Amino acid sequence: MRVEDLVERPGAWLSMGPETGVAISSRIRLARNIRGAAFPGWAGQEESVQIADSIFDALGKVSELDGALVLKIDQLDPVDRQILRERHLISNELVDKGEGSGLVVTRDESVAVMVNEEDHLRLQVISPGINLDRLWARIDAIDSSLEEHLTYSFAPDIGYLTACPTNVGTGLRASVMVHLPGLSLMHEVEPVVKGLSKIGLAVRGLLGEGTEAAGNMFQISNQVTLGQSEVEIIGRLSEVVSEVIVHEHNARQRLMEGRESQVRDLVGRAHGILRQAHLMTSREMLDLLSALRLGIELELVRNADVKLVNELMLLTQPGHLQRILKQTISPEERDVVRARMVRERLAKLTIEKDLTRDAT
Amino acid sequence: MRVEDLVERPGAWLSMGPETGVAISSRIRLARNIRGAAFPGWAGQEESVQIADSIFDALGKVSELDGALVLKIDQLDPVDRQILRERHLISNELVDKGEGSGLVVTRDESVAVMVNEEDHLRLQVISPGINLDRLWARIDAIDSSLEEHLTYSFAPDIGYLTACPTNVGTGLRASVMVHLPGLSLMHEVEPVVKGLSKIGLAVRGLLGEGTEAAGNMFQISNQVTLGQSEVEIIGRLSEVVSEVIVHEHNARQRLMEGRESQVRDLVGRAHGILRQAHLMTSREMLDLLSALRLGIELELVRNADVKLVNELMLLTQPGHLQRILKQTISPEERDVVRARMVRERLAKLTIEKDLTRDAT
Repeated sequence: MRVEDLVERPGAWLSMGPETGVAISSRIRLARNIRGAAFPGWAGQEESVQIADSIFDALGKVSELDGALVLKIDQLDPVDRQILRERHLISNELVDKGEGSGLVVTRDESVAVMVNEEDHLRLQVISPGINLDRLWARIDAIDSSLEEHLTYSFAPDIGYLTACPTNVGTGLRASVMVHLPGLSLMHEVEPVVKGLSKIGLAVRGLLGEGTEAAGNMFQISNQVTLGQSEVEIIGRLSEVVSEVIVHEHNARQRLMEGRESQVRDLVGRAHGILRQAHLMTSREMLDLLSALRLGIELELVRNADVKLVNELMLLTQPGHLQRILKQTISPEERDVVRARMVRERLAKLTIEKDLTRDAT
Repeated sequence: MRVEDLVERPGAWLSMGPETGVAISSRIRLARNIRGAAFPGWAGQEESVQIADSIFDALGKVSELDGALVLKIDQLDPVDRQILRERHLISNELVDKGEGSGLVVTRDESVAVMVNEEDHLRLQVISPGINLDRLWARIDAIDSSLEEHLTYSFAPDIGYLTACPTNVGTGLRASVMVHLPGLSLMHEVEPVVKGLSKIGLAVRGLLGEGTEAAGNMFQISNQVTLGQSEVEIIGRLSEVVSEVIVHEHNARQRLMEGRESQVRDLVGRAHGILRQAHLMTSREMLDLLSALRLGIELELVRNADVKLVNELMLLTQPGHLQRILKQTISPEERDVVRARMVRERLAKLTIEKDLTRDAT
């Protein structure tokens, strides 16, 4: 299996589970480092490669990773790296690394381990919907298996040591990706974000740190990794995200009660543009797909499903688009190709009638 | 025949002739006043009514106006006045007048005479396309017939006297409504407008003085009424407008050669939105219909014709919309009803396939 074999499959962060809706996917990652080895940022080239080799070796012995794809970052072309980034399998930081860094990822993309990113190991598990308890059980098992083959840098009074102090302790970052078009239309995202940051949670856009909330997608995650147990962190996050989901449903209900025409207008315009535009940036596309997704979930649109929206979100990103086309093209050309792909994939639908019905 | 009988018919300024395209319609109006009577702005209520009566009487004797609709402005409700304004039959100034002002208009709306607007008489003839010579012959004949029954205020060395000095002399204003989406997309409208004003022509938006160019519609007219003969004024305007039309066609050709995707994008988005929006202001609608019209004229859209675009331009304006609905509604409600009407009237079309084809 090669990176390009992933392209036409649903990405793990967008795959569909029964509980997918406002909560699109959940993710837990653990930061781990090897005792006695320099952190990746301090290690020389030779040491990095040695550390990576021993880690790849250990990962090969973990049964949960049987049959996983092993990728050395320096052996991947820029488009492949971009595809992995777009599938949320690697970070921006890993994209730019060279020899001695890499990724081990299971075929279903539910488990991914970055090697020599900021830390020696970044273990990640991901699943659709909000599912943090099960994810924790899974990553904890993988972490324990791995510890049979590697000795982690660990201080009994602090916890796991990490390159950046913000990860010290549990080394755990749990996050849930939520879709909040209702709160966004009601201009209530900002107070929610402020409230969350006051209780020690972080809110980021679709593509992680420093990115805007394209498509009304927000990642909610814990900030604190020290002084709380993993189970406490996860329990707290699950609880708060459940509240946010209630807020979002509430906002959608208020919208349909008081501003149905506005919602139908947003959804109808989004569908009309997606179906007939000839130039489209990925940012605009995410925003329009967000509106279409809202329409599907509010049952304003019937002959479409969220799977198609997810597919388009992934396939129209620059890396995926170029791999499908089998050529490297400029951003301007991508806007043409992206619009065409969206037109073609939506042309199968016959959802027009739903959208042209009036607010009642 | 009453004002509401006009509603579902094409307005004269939007009616279709063989030469309609960039030039939508041509119009000539003559300002005339009755010798020895005070201008409308200075006349008292009683005098105004007397003058109006004598003018209505004279208009009744002109054979070109046989069977025309005679409307006293104070007997029309606000929606009827708005409808006449939207059909370019009366001015904003006449809309606000009371007893002693009115309109005589032929059934085909090609001849309209405002009584006691700024001047005692404002004679107007209108036709599709660019057609100023024939319009001049027609209005000149009506003017001569009318002069058999009225004595105009005229000074041999100056010409016709008018309430505002800008109309003194010929009292003639000729104008052509042109649709310039190509020049607009190429950002070349401004230099054209500047050039025209340097040679003594005025450029205004769709609804006359002080209005913006909604829907890329521009009225080009003469500024000077004194010191030139009617034939000179009209000949000059015809010549210049013909040049503007050539510029517009040239801009469209350059767009299709160098920026076809951009044109298809504009047209496709306009159609997608018109077909599926649930809220639409009249300004946005004019802009979107302008894009659709461009698409039809460039043969990017085939199963639609400009007649439908014209119909929607007229019927979705506030007065027409309210008369069709048979109730007075707020601007917010009009946005809902306007969007619905556009969706319904466009639903008959099957132009999707054309618009989803790619630029070649």
